[in-house]
Amino acid sequence: MNINGVIMADMSSLTVFSPEVYDQRLRRAQEITRSAGIDAVVVATGEDFFYLTGSTLSSHERLTALIIPAEGKPQLFAPGTDILDLNLSPVPNLDVEVHGWNDGDDIYGQVAKAIGQDAATVAATAALTADHLFQLQGLVDAQWVLANTALAELFSSKDEAEIEELRKAAQAIDRVHAKVPDLLQPGRTEREVAEDLTAMILDEHVSVDFVIVGSMENGANPHHSFSDRVINAGDPVVVDIGGTLETGYHSDCTRTYVAGGDISQAPEDFLKAYEVLQAAQKASLEFSKPGRTAQEIDASSRTPITEAGYGAYFTHRLGHGIGLSGHEEPFIIAGSDLVIRESMAFSIEPGIYMPGKWGMRIEDIVTTTADGIESLNQGPRGLR
Amino acid sequence: MNINGVIMADMSSLTVFSPEVYDQRLRRAQEITRSAGIDAVVVATGEDFFYLTGSTLSSHERLTALIIPAEGKPQLFAPGTDILDLNLSPVPNLDVEVHGWNDGDDIYGQVAKAIGQDAATVAATAALTADHLFQLQGLVDAQWVLANTALAELFSSKDEAEIEELRKAAQAIDRVHAKVPDLLQPGRTEREVAEDLTAMILDEHVSVDFVIVGSMENGANPHHSFSDRVINAGDPVVVDIGGTLETGYHSDCTRTYVAGGDISQAPEDFLKAYEVLQAAQKASLEFSKPGRTAQEIDASSRTPITEAGYGAYFTHRLGHGIGLSGHEEPFIIAGSDLVIRESMAFSIEPGIYMPGKWGMRIEDIVTTTADGIESLNQGPRGLR
Repeated sequence: MNINGVIMADMSSLTVFSPEVYDQRLRRAQEITRSAGIDAVVVATGEDFFYLTGSTLSSHERLTALIIPAEGKPQLFAPGTDILDLNLSPVPNLDVEVHGWNDGDDIYGQVAKAIGQDAATVAATAALTADHLFQLQGLVDAQWVLANTALAELFSSKDEAEIEELRKAAQAIDRVHAKVPDLLQPGRTEREVAEDLTAMILDEHVSVDFVIVGSMENGANPHHSFSDRVINAGDPVVVDIGGTLETGYHSDCTRTYVAGGDISQAPEDFLKAYEVLQAAQKASLEFSKPGRTAQEIDASSRTPITEAGYGAYFTHRLGHGIGLSGHEEPFIIAGSDLVIRESMAFSIEPGIYMPGKWGMRIEDIVTTTADGIESLNQGPRGLR
Repeated sequence: MNINGVIMADMSSLTVFSPEVYDQRLRRAQEITRSAGIDAVVVATGEDFFYLTGSTLSSHERLTALIIPAEGKPQLFAPGTDILDLNLSPVPNLDVEVHGWNDGDDIYGQVAKAIGQDAATVAATAALTADHLFQLQGLVDAQWVLANTALAELFSSKDEAEIEELRKAAQAIDRVHAKVPDLLQPGRTEREVAEDLTAMILDEHVSVDFVIVGSMENGANPHHSFSDRVINAGDPVVVDIGGTLETGYHSDCTRTYVAGGDISQAPEDFLKAYEVLQAAQKASLEFSKPGRTAQEIDASSRTPITEAGYGAYFTHRLGHGIGLSGHEEPFIIAGSDLVIRESMAFSIEPGIYMPGKWGMRIEDIVTTTADGIESLNQGPRGLR
């Protein structure tokens, strides 16, 4: 989603589900709001709004928001300048009351009324920005909490149709990874490989989310994209790629390669560490299941990596949720006692980053089943 | 700016000014913070962050923020996963203290300390999202205000180098508009015209922000993009286009055309209303100068349009600021007593929208001089 009209045009052609799906999600959202003791939820535009309404509308400094009260019909407020765009979405067929507003109207007053000015607890989605939030907080003197945490059950559970889209996305990116060994010919630059990958991701998705080709010391920067560095035979190369399907669901998968394919040419300290990393990632795949907490799952990789002496070089959380956004709840991170439930989707991606030398990461997207996980990514995890 | 790695790669090649420019902006920000009685400003990633640091870093759910205290050195917090990207920006050469943090660290505690836990008034930029803001509000029990309003002098004044970029952007989009009459051949669809325009905007900018080609009743939706509607001779067509220069500054200009170029073929009620619109836009160009308030300038178009009987069909504010973002302070809107000062940049864009029939809008970007305005867009404003 973007203010870029051209990209919006693409987004408005996103395949969406039938209105029944959104009405069901809205009812579920309201049930959870009520049972969480929250008086109303303010849903800002972005992925959460798209999840609940099927609309990609985004009006930036002009407030567009869906208000889900604990009781009564959801209310959608959108600027008159944008409201006709809602007709391209399922919104006209949903059990939602739509209110257009014009510049100069007291829109914050209207929204505050829909929230309920005597509300005790109000939740807002993560995407609500300070310009709108300060105005609403000034009018509704409630305890304001983060919807994505308070209503984690809603915002992190995937239904079967969503899991199927994530499965398709994972298979799409797996097909790209299958071609990576051929691309990593010694003498090519990271940029050349990244350009090939960009085209390949677009063959399998409607857009490219990111392309990371990190060889040698560049692999030690977890968010390096790519550079003009020439890749040599035996160089460790971290390849982390992802894209978006036409339904809006994302892929995200990392594998670590040895350029040229002769593993024995890789640095010895790298090969030693990779054994630790692969065992840790496998341990987390086996450990993860409903009932475990996010911090326990994080520890299932972090503990063996730390015991092997690499703890200081595993500098990020184990994983993040994924769905209509690339990074969302549940975050698999130390300190989080969030209990993982069935039908969540998240990444398991331990990494070891040796500054100035090399990096490595293995990332799979998994969904939780009744008693374990299904890894949606299935490509080989060993060095190639 | 986008989590899209490919787009980020483009953004990281944005031409930036010398470190001295950013140090000067930071010093000015601190002076204004102090004189406004604000204890600290929290600058979230986005255009404001780019304006102050020259960095396009955006770390989304992981907090990246620049804290400008009323006294002492600005503090920049960024996740370890992203911090190496800062080296691509002027930040290492700025008088700013940079702190990396890792997943699991108490980052909100660290930022709250930099804000000052006994702060009475804290400002946050509009782009700060609820996920981060709720955490910081929980730790710093201050009055939280919108930085872009409280520090309007900083966030809406352009220096000469910025105005020169906006001038270049306006000239670039004027060159595209000059070719529009040739594109609007009867029998073509809005989409075909929009595709040509997209290519032409890209010839003059590094990216396309939006393309609106609204013929007949589609022109009555101010934010219509384009459709497969076939344009006929004599159809009124609203063309609103904009792009971004490599320095990050935006163009944004609207003209209304009559397809085929024979004005007399346009609907009579349209031609009558256009005279009102053009006179109103001209009146606003002449009326605007430092010392006028935003609502007075809005009224300078709205009053004549209303007096001519079209008030109900001019459904949006008169204008918006422009710079590194496409829409920013000053908003030229009824109810705003913001006093316009020298060196601001904003649009003057009255419109009349007759539902089901046609629409019209004339938009120029202007900057305020000592005693008036300079219209950066110079293309003819009459029907063509």
